[in-house]
Amino acid sequence: MQKNVSLEEAWRRKYPEQVVLVLTKHDDGRINIMAVGWIAIVSDDPGMFMIGIDDQAFTLELIRRNREFVIAYPAKNMADVTRYVGTVHGHNIDKGSASGLAFTPATAVNVPLLSDAVANFECETVAEYRPGNCPLIIGKIVACHVNTDDSIQRLVNAGSGYQLQ
Amino acid sequence: MQKNVSLEEAWRRKYPEQVVLVLTKHDDGRINIMAVGWIAIVSDDPGMFMIGIDDQAFTLELIRRNREFVIAYPAKNMADVTRYVGTVHGHNIDKGSASGLAFTPATAVNVPLLSDAVANFECETVAEYRPGNCPLIIGKIVACHVNTDDSIQRLVNAGSGYQLQ
Repeated sequence: MQKNVSLEEAWRRKYPEQVVLVLTKHDDGRINIMAVGWIAIVSDDPGMFMIGIDDQAFTLELIRRNREFVIAYPAKNMADVTRYVGTVHGHNIDKGSASGLAFTPATAVNVPLLSDAVANFECETVAEYRPGNCPLIIGKIVACHVNTDDSIQRLVNAGSGYQLQ
Repeated sequence: MQKNVSLEEAWRRKYPEQVVLVLTKHDDGRINIMAVGWIAIVSDDPGMFMIGIDDQAFTLELIRRNREFVIAYPAKNMADVTRYVGTVHGHNIDKGSASGLAFTPATAVNVPLLSDAVANFECETVAEYRPGNCPLIIGKIVACHVNTDDSIQRLVNAGSGYQLQ
C-alpha cells in the first residue's frame, strides 16, 4: 500500500544508488576527483554518460574549461577514498595527491585513469543542460579501459550518509 | 591495472545497474509499463528525474502525447514482472492487464501508481533532450508516495540478460 510523502522522505527509499568518481585536471597539473551519484548512460552509439555536477564544484569549473574528464567505477575496496573525495572540496585541497590513489595515463584525453578502478571511461563534453537546479554534463566516451582483474566489483551507495559497500 | 577495451566490453562491468518501472496511460484507458535502466536524479529543488526512452517505445509516444508519467521503484519480489514488462512491447500488448500488477490512483497525474512498489513518483514532462541516439525525458516530480512496508528494498539489475535481484 502507498502513502503520500515528501520528496525527501521518498528519496530515502532510492538505495542502492550508484556512485562514480569523476577525474579532471587543473592547468597546474593537479588532479581533481569527485564522487557523483547523479549519473546515467544516455546513448550507446556513440556511447555517452550524463553526470550532474553542482554549481559549486571545482570539477564543474575544470570540465567547462577543458571539456574533458574521466569517469571511473570505484571498486568495493575504495569505500574510504570515495567517501573522502566526495566530502572535501577541490578548490583548496589537492585531492589527487591527498587521496593516495594511483593514476595511469589515458589514451585520448589529458586526464589520467584511476589505476585500481573497475573501469575507466575517457569523455569529451558534447553538451550541457540545466533543466532544474543542477548542471548536467554530457560526455561522449572516446576510450574505455577495464581492470585486468575480472573479479572486482563496483562500489555502491547502500544508504544515506555514504553507506558505501 | 587497466587495459584498453571496446565500449561493449567496458559496459559489462557496469553492474549493479538500477532499474525503474515507467507507467503511462493510453487514451483508451490501457496502462503501459516499461522497465528503464537509463535513469538519474537531475535536480532536487524542484525534484526531477531523467529517463532515457528509446525511439521505438510505446512509452515515449504516450509521454510525448500526455506529458505525464509515473516512475516506480520495483521491489525485490518483482523480478519476474519487471523482466516481463522490460522485454515485450506495449504497442500490441496491454501490459497493464497482462502483468497482473495492482494499481492505485495517483494524486496529481492521470496515470496510476504501482501499489506494491517501494516508491512512486508522479512526474510531468518539462524538457526533452537528445545528445546522442536516445531521447531523454526530464520529469518534474509533482507528488511522491512510498510503500507503508518500510522493510521492502529496491530491485537491482546485477548483470547482463536481466539478472534482477
